[in-house]
Amino acid sequence: METKDGIKKIVIIGGGFAGINLIQKLQHDKRFHITLVDKNNYNFFPPLIYQLATGFLETSSICYPFRKLLRGKKNVRFHMGELLRVDPATRTCYLNNGELSYDYLVFATGTETNYFGNENIRRNAIPMKTVNDALEMRNTLLKRLELACVINDPAERKKLLTIVIAGGGPTGVEISGMLAELRLYIARKDYPELQGHGGDIYLINGGDALLEPMSTKSQKHTYDSLRRLGVKIKLNTRVKDFVDDQVILSNGDPIDTKNLIWATGVTACTFEGIPAASLGVGRRMITDEYNEVTGVDYIYAIGDSSLQTHEEAFPKGHPQLAQVAMQQGKNLAKNFIAMANGRSLTPFRYTDKGSMAIIGRNDAVADIPRPKFHVSGFLAWALWLVIHLYSLINYRNKLKTMYNWTVAYLTMDQALRMIIKPINKPPDPKPAEPKPAETRPVVQV
Amino acid sequence: METKDGIKKIVIIGGGFAGINLIQKLQHDKRFHITLVDKNNYNFFPPLIYQLATGFLETSSICYPFRKLLRGKKNVRFHMGELLRVDPATRTCYLNNGELSYDYLVFATGTETNYFGNENIRRNAIPMKTVNDALEMRNTLLKRLELACVINDPAERKKLLTIVIAGGGPTGVEISGMLAELRLYIARKDYPELQGHGGDIYLINGGDALLEPMSTKSQKHTYDSLRRLGVKIKLNTRVKDFVDDQVILSNGDPIDTKNLIWATGVTACTFEGIPAASLGVGRRMITDEYNEVTGVDYIYAIGDSSLQTHEEAFPKGHPQLAQVAMQQGKNLAKNFIAMANGRSLTPFRYTDKGSMAIIGRNDAVADIPRPKFHVSGFLAWALWLVIHLYSLINYRNKLKTMYNWTVAYLTMDQALRMIIKPINKPPDPKPAEPKPAETRPVVQV
Repeated sequence: METKDGIKKIVIIGGGFAGINLIQKLQHDKRFHITLVDKNNYNFFPPLIYQLATGFLETSSICYPFRKLLRGKKNVRFHMGELLRVDPATRTCYLNNGELSYDYLVFATGTETNYFGNENIRRNAIPMKTVNDALEMRNTLLKRLELACVINDPAERKKLLTIVIAGGGPTGVEISGMLAELRLYIARKDYPELQGHGGDIYLINGGDALLEPMSTKSQKHTYDSLRRLGVKIKLNTRVKDFVDDQVILSNGDPIDTKNLIWATGVTACTFEGIPAASLGVGRRMITDEYNEVTGVDYIYAIGDSSLQTHEEAFPKGHPQLAQVAMQQGKNLAKNFIAMANGRSLTPFRYTDKGSMAIIGRNDAVADIPRPKFHVSGFLAWALWLVIHLYSLINYRNKLKTMYNWTVAYLTMDQALRMIIKPINKPPDPKPAEPKPAETRPVVQV
Repeated sequence: METKDGIKKIVIIGGGFAGINLIQKLQHDKRFHITLVDKNNYNFFPPLIYQLATGFLETSSICYPFRKLLRGKKNVRFHMGELLRVDPATRTCYLNNGELSYDYLVFATGTETNYFGNENIRRNAIPMKTVNDALEMRNTLLKRLELACVINDPAERKKLLTIVIAGGGPTGVEISGMLAELRLYIARKDYPELQGHGGDIYLINGGDALLEPMSTKSQKHTYDSLRRLGVKIKLNTRVKDFVDDQVILSNGDPIDTKNLIWATGVTACTFEGIPAASLGVGRRMITDEYNEVTGVDYIYAIGDSSLQTHEEAFPKGHPQLAQVAMQQGKNLAKNFIAMANGRSLTPFRYTDKGSMAIIGRNDAVADIPRPKFHVSGFLAWALWLVIHLYSLINYRNKLKTMYNWTVAYLTMDQALRMIIKPINKPPDPKPAEPKPAETRPVVQV
């Protein structure tokens, strides 16, 4: 299967943390010809999605076009497209807009929102996973706020203003903290009509602590801080259903609201051609210690889409975190180079660099593993800002984000509150012909 | 109809140049209670729409939320909504989400795209009037560029890469200049797959000169500059139809393309309750010299939606320009104050402050009326930048735009190339229930 000139064709599906770290270690190595396939034309930074959703950052602060990122890297090509099917026998990827043959195929496809089969929730809740989800959340909440200003029925108004967040992980905590602060500092100034008509913010968590994998100290600090901001927290509780403007909790209690933000539950993306036996818990692809998928040849999985159980500390697989994805991307790159050099491979070994979450202005929590310590409040918040700014993909992102954060901090304000609606063309006099996929309406930032 | 306390209720429909200038002169005057109604929650700056469309500026550079703009102005309220019908007899506005009674009603509703009744063009062309149009254009052109990179059929590829711009006014000129430069400087670097596969850029203009109302010198300079950038200009020609990936010109010539940008033709927005006899050419409302609409009482129209013929120099009405809209807004404010003071009213008189258009990097044209002179090239370009920067609505916009322009100028690059798609929820297993208007999907920036 080797090409005549000995160059190995690597196809990488997905340009998130895992895929980009893999590419960055292989770029300029002429023994590889790399094609990055992604359904979006940009890389984005998921840890800051919630700031996009709440209007503190704009799309260009957390997104960066692949073609600019890969510019000048002669052995890397970008192909915007969606993987439909893999044929491991002929080593071919079938995309929605072409075919690619490969020597090695790498899945860095991450996860998608899991509604656990609940159709009502899937249809009516606001997910919080992609750039588009975030923009949709911003638009939806802003529209409902405007509607609340002009409506006369107090019960309807309360439904518009009440927000339920399902999931007490970092995203749920960060979203509820930020919405609570928006209510305190901004809604008061800009929506005088709503004085005294506040809705509630609920944070619903299935487990018995917020930020489950973090230290007890961090969990307690987070709980207390959010309570102080006015967030109503319900632990050991799940969202069971969402019908007729009512969120139904697992204990049967209803909450009247139009807004359910779904920040709980993800599942790996699956693709035709990968046998069911190769999939483990959460549909993640079962891989060996070198990230090769079991049951198929020449196919690898890294990041959230991979399930590796060889490390003693992680018998159920690694947590689905950016750090794991980045480290797996780098390790696989090292192994591809080792293969090309005829050297032995390095098994993946995860180094925990700690975890953190932001709660609000001047408040965050951080657990650092070595030396083991816990920090919260202003210091953790400053640390969070520095690390996230540092991690953004390029200089322009960093500068913009710093600017936005500085203005937001100094003014206790956020400016990004435009509701951008899809085109409202006049109604068709005759039924519109179905448009080819390529021209379906795309709307954006 | 006066309220008990003598306060006049003014309802303004539309927060563009005309509406905002009217408000800014009346704010803090406690004799007026003003409600601004707009279907968007933000003001935007139309002269820079084309820079949003081409990825040089982002939404927040040219948009600003009304609620931030009106913050602290106790006699001004914002109502996000759409006007459906007016009842002049009871002085009531019926909106999609409420009713408002008024003492004075002001239409500052501007214009919308006019397809001259051609259904094919309405359905398939890209309009260039609203923020959403601009984002749609950016997404559409970027998607087609990506598709052109992976397609094998040379004829299809050429259709994806060819762009026809209808309309040789400022928008058409600015869009075609910018697209031509993008092709020269950026496509070459970031789309190596497309080397040697260029599509053409056509600018189609009905009249015998570009930038019709400008000086002959400016027109000639613009024509020559665009030609030099590789734009194919067709004068005295109209786009007649757009079917099956073919733009049909008025002389019968076809151009194979998927991309028609519609920058020609607008028509004023009309509303139920305004008698047909009150509408003139282009559906503009016929107003007297004080901007009061003829045939109805207590109703005014300013800006693009107004047709005033009392000035000798403008027997067919004023040109539909930002300058006219701003000056009419200010004059009407002055007259409302005069009415409250029992003084006599001032007829509107337009002061032409000149006009300009940008063609490309370092190149623009400007006609200054008093002292009468014409300037083109770098000097006009610098003037254009300064004036447009100065005209942006607030400090934050100005700073951001200056930053974006500086980076774009120094790097000959633009970073805003993210294609943001609407949510792609998994298909419904059963037909979705129609959503209430309030929750219809909104997607954005």
